[in-house]
Amino acid sequence: MSPDSLHTVAPRNRLERLQEILDRGALKHAAKLLNALQPAEIAHLLESLPYAEREIVWGLVSEDKDGEVLLHVNDEVRAELIGKMDVPELLAAVEGLDTDDLADLVQDLPLTITSQVLDSLDLQRRGRLEGVLSYGEDTAGGLMNTDPITVRPEVPLDVVLRYLRRLRDRIPEATDALFVVNRENRYLGIVKITDLLTHDPEDTVAEVMSLDLEPILAPDSAREVASRFEHYDLVSAPVVDQDGRLVGRITVDDVVDFIREEGEHAFMGHAGLSEDEDMFAPVLLSARRRALWLGVNLLTAFLASSVINLFEATIDRVVALAVLMPIVASMGGIAGSQTLTLAIRGLALGQLSAKNARSLLLKELAVGLLNSLIWAAVVALVAGLWFDSVALAALIAVALTINLLFAAFSGALLPLGLARIGIDPALAGSVLLTTVTDVVGFMAFLGLATVFLR
Amino acid sequence: MSPDSLHTVAPRNRLERLQEILDRGALKHAAKLLNALQPAEIAHLLESLPYAEREIVWGLVSEDKDGEVLLHVNDEVRAELIGKMDVPELLAAVEGLDTDDLADLVQDLPLTITSQVLDSLDLQRRGRLEGVLSYGEDTAGGLMNTDPITVRPEVPLDVVLRYLRRLRDRIPEATDALFVVNRENRYLGIVKITDLLTHDPEDTVAEVMSLDLEPILAPDSAREVASRFEHYDLVSAPVVDQDGRLVGRITVDDVVDFIREEGEHAFMGHAGLSEDEDMFAPVLLSARRRALWLGVNLLTAFLASSVINLFEATIDRVVALAVLMPIVASMGGIAGSQTLTLAIRGLALGQLSAKNARSLLLKELAVGLLNSLIWAAVVALVAGLWFDSVALAALIAVALTINLLFAAFSGALLPLGLARIGIDPALAGSVLLTTVTDVVGFMAFLGLATVFLR
Repeated sequence: MSPDSLHTVAPRNRLERLQEILDRGALKHAAKLLNALQPAEIAHLLESLPYAEREIVWGLVSEDKDGEVLLHVNDEVRAELIGKMDVPELLAAVEGLDTDDLADLVQDLPLTITSQVLDSLDLQRRGRLEGVLSYGEDTAGGLMNTDPITVRPEVPLDVVLRYLRRLRDRIPEATDALFVVNRENRYLGIVKITDLLTHDPEDTVAEVMSLDLEPILAPDSAREVASRFEHYDLVSAPVVDQDGRLVGRITVDDVVDFIREEGEHAFMGHAGLSEDEDMFAPVLLSARRRALWLGVNLLTAFLASSVINLFEATIDRVVALAVLMPIVASMGGIAGSQTLTLAIRGLALGQLSAKNARSLLLKELAVGLLNSLIWAAVVALVAGLWFDSVALAALIAVALTINLLFAAFSGALLPLGLARIGIDPALAGSVLLTTVTDVVGFMAFLGLATVFLR
Repeated sequence: MSPDSLHTVAPRNRLERLQEILDRGALKHAAKLLNALQPAEIAHLLESLPYAEREIVWGLVSEDKDGEVLLHVNDEVRAELIGKMDVPELLAAVEGLDTDDLADLVQDLPLTITSQVLDSLDLQRRGRLEGVLSYGEDTAGGLMNTDPITVRPEVPLDVVLRYLRRLRDRIPEATDALFVVNRENRYLGIVKITDLLTHDPEDTVAEVMSLDLEPILAPDSAREVASRFEHYDLVSAPVVDQDGRLVGRITVDDVVDFIREEGEHAFMGHAGLSEDEDMFAPVLLSARRRALWLGVNLLTAFLASSVINLFEATIDRVVALAVLMPIVASMGGIAGSQTLTLAIRGLALGQLSAKNARSLLLKELAVGLLNSLIWAAVVALVAGLWFDSVALAALIAVALTINLLFAAFSGALLPLGLARIGIDPALAGSVLLTTVTDVVGFMAFLGLATVFLR
């Protein structure tokens, strides 16, 4: 191995090494090193590169890897890279991709090119692609590949073995089992590859097949698929249509990608970002997208301000209120976001439903009450000493308690409510929660002050 | 299949069904249905149950499943369930677990029981367990199992096949390849199971083995392991020690669990929660843990209040300042958390380093500047009209711009700085960022007002 091969460099140092070589202007050298990597690794490097360098490096990727690399970059970077390719390049890139991968990619191509890609496929492949595309992207049908190896129950194992020997390098990756189907292509069970090895070659498929793997339904959600793979430690699983006919196969690598994306969706969604956000997106594009989120937040901030404005006269009389009011609002926001986070995860894992929401709500209210007792006392003590006022201390303690209870209440119930009306709680939850805790916090504190501080 | 079997009920409806049966008091029936499920599915149900019901259901789980179920619940629920078991039950539960699983579990057992468990193991198993335990939990060594099937390069395939036939049901799950080692147990390469099937039985292992799978080093981080599995679509991979000797095997199911946990860590950490937080933890425990996070936040809130307090006199003169100041602080917090989120994800994926941080910083500053131009104008217009003051409009626009730039700056650099000093940015990032944007926001707005609003 060359001492300068990227392949032997630990992944975390590759970017640095590549940039050194690029800085030296040794493009040929860079191209050689780059193309020795896996497509997914090249994709990872591309995502890590600032805009200008990314364009140079993309030009160095060899044509036969283009398709696979496009598959592995996130949607935004993909759109950017596709934008730099011409039609023949794009047609070459999609050639030889698996059907499920092609289905992913084809939806991101410009419309004029999509039809050219479809025309370039043979009838069988086109039919399969349309099959995959007919299911939503986040369903089992959208995740599946159409390459399963099927066998009939009455066939002896040595015939199966001979068949596999003929297929040889065309046995798809992650084939840990063959699927048994009847004449009508209805799914019956699986034969594990290791069982093929260890049983008498004269046994029939029916004799060694295992029946306990329930097939996945094509319209099932990707989330259900992921939890099946996690609970059963699957490597691959059969997908059937509503009539029980085998239509495809899902492999664990696609499930891994889905779980990774789902995690990022929840994490990024919290800040109003998409999991496909490109770290080095062009400034204008980025600014435009972020602007929306800031705008939504500005509305809620104005709402909070207008609540404060209701009590302008009170603040004018007791300026200490202006000093202390952010404490009430912010403690509510923090406590509420803890409950909210717990509830959103529960929903995502399918562990929270209308059935046990009451238990969660009661528990969170109790936690909120306990915590407000502790922190209301601390805040009251500090505020009372600071502004030398028993009344102010009592007021802020009560307001804080009210806000923490409201926070627990909305944190527990907002996600369920949003999910019911079809809004993603991971995206909208935190803005709405902050609105509640700001408004209630200011209203409680300043309202009580208006009534009692005379 | 019984019409009342939980197994045939879609996972999302199982909880409801089980609770119905429990409500009827049909415990025996419930136990039968429950134990027909996979341990991971039982674990999922247990996590979804409120405290009291969880205890009842845990009592229904059959003893031979206890160990596997304990493995699949999160750390907190695990501690709770372990607390309800006596010593013989615990010893029975850990019997028959794989070494990597035992290693996970043994660290959560009470110390007195750990030694009893260790004593109950035979010498070989104990040695393996200590091997796994000698590596950190989040390293390749901690994730690995010690069950790989190894073969020598000079052996013909038919001997290997005979050996596998003898092993039969003892071939470990997710065995897609055998590992080739020399006399000193040094790793040489892999033989895929499908290659065993499709090559001439008289070929030797050396002739069919593939060399391009670099082994994973036992001290490598679990994060690196995950990215290897993701980039190479692996099902299993060999783990070697520093001398290249094969010490174990990592399988994709453990990688899936790690990726899921890592995603939850980032998501929950944002709200100061651990990924192991139990949705139905006892109120007192929960309250105590949350209290810490609220306390940290209270300190930052007091810091913000003391900044406001510096300008009490100014607010006393112009109460509109108190009404508008939360807008400046909150817009900074939102913009900053977008940058922060992007940077934390970049770090987690290994795509952000000191090398390209400058590019990210410049881009984020540019995005922040552009957005502040838009929103500063909007805020200035609204504030100017609302309070009929050009000076106030100009002030808030400048303060907002300053805060958005500070937000971009700290959002981009805080995570890198925290990571360098060994603090988890997913946990501490957002509190620190909010402190910056609150302090800078109030300081800029009220400070400018003090100087210019006379």
